[in-house]
Amino acid sequence: MGVDPGLTRCGLGAVEGRPGAPLSLVSVGVVRTPADDDIGARLVVIEAEIERWLDELKPDAVAVERVFAQHNVRTVMGTAQASAVAIVCAARRGLPVALHTPSEVKAAITGHGNADKKQVGTMVTRLLRLDAMPKPADAADALALAICHVWRGGVQHRLADALARARSAPRPAPARREDA
Amino acid sequence: MGVDPGLTRCGLGAVEGRPGAPLSLVSVGVVRTPADDDIGARLVVIEAEIERWLDELKPDAVAVERVFAQHNVRTVMGTAQASAVAIVCAARRGLPVALHTPSEVKAAITGHGNADKKQVGTMVTRLLRLDAMPKPADAADALALAICHVWRGGVQHRLADALARARSAPRPAPARREDA
Repeated sequence: MGVDPGLTRCGLGAVEGRPGAPLSLVSVGVVRTPADDDIGARLVVIEAEIERWLDELKPDAVAVERVFAQHNVRTVMGTAQASAVAIVCAARRGLPVALHTPSEVKAAITGHGNADKKQVGTMVTRLLRLDAMPKPADAADALALAICHVWRGGVQHRLADALARARSAPRPAPARREDA
Repeated sequence: MGVDPGLTRCGLGAVEGRPGAPLSLVSVGVVRTPADDDIGARLVVIEAEIERWLDELKPDAVAVERVFAQHNVRTVMGTAQASAVAIVCAARRGLPVALHTPSEVKAAITGHGNADKKQVGTMVTRLLRLDAMPKPADAADALALAICHVWRGGVQHRLADALARARSAPRPAPARREDA
């Protein structure tokens, strides 16, 4: 499950699949909260909706967009706060939480890290064999995060497998962290 | 109850009192989470501790420091995320959540908005008639937030009372928001 965090629009998307096999759409949506509600009320709505998704879909992992403070400061604070809600919802259930940067997601989905929203949406539509591009862009971005996570997770699994094999070999491999 | 949000140290402080009467300390502490834990684990620890405080102390309101992106970007993201956890913990119980800026807190406690941490700590110690300054500074700041909230809340109550009187008077007062 992917979460494109935001207060005004928080994209949610879930996909099923594994690296090297076709992916399929499980669910896609967006949580909207009114800009004139107070921050507490907005975060509670976002939390309730994420909880509902986690209850119903029981995802294996949650991928959340990593937030940077490079954009509009006011927006970024809200984005960081919405991301915290998504992260804590997943983590308190013991679900693995992965943070992917926007350029990691774009690179995974389109092949280049500076792709625009439309290119990401087009590739998401194609990869999931959808009839139309998911709208709004936040919903497509959440699916892109989920797809990116399946694929990167696959790479990490292969790395972990390779390391496990290396460790069981006669000459010990040097210790390293697998989740770098 | 006041929360000075942070991932490495999250200050918590609760006071009892009302404007114009002496304040007393209810509880003070700090939640620490290891910098090398992942963000999910850290936020879950902060959430659990804030929940424990809310369960035990049943505060009337929660005051959280308003986060700005003017400082170190990396720290600010963590601060925004910890603040989101505090806000959502309070809001989902229906508790009022107030956000006060650092300068509002400093002005309320010391009389000037650019006071340093030591001046704030000294005034908190004096106002609560403590034997020693609460340590670390995050704990003292959380108490300062709680005190600021009691006092500003008092101002807001008086404003609301005045407005209610004005509304019940023959000439209607213009509509306005009380929580500006």
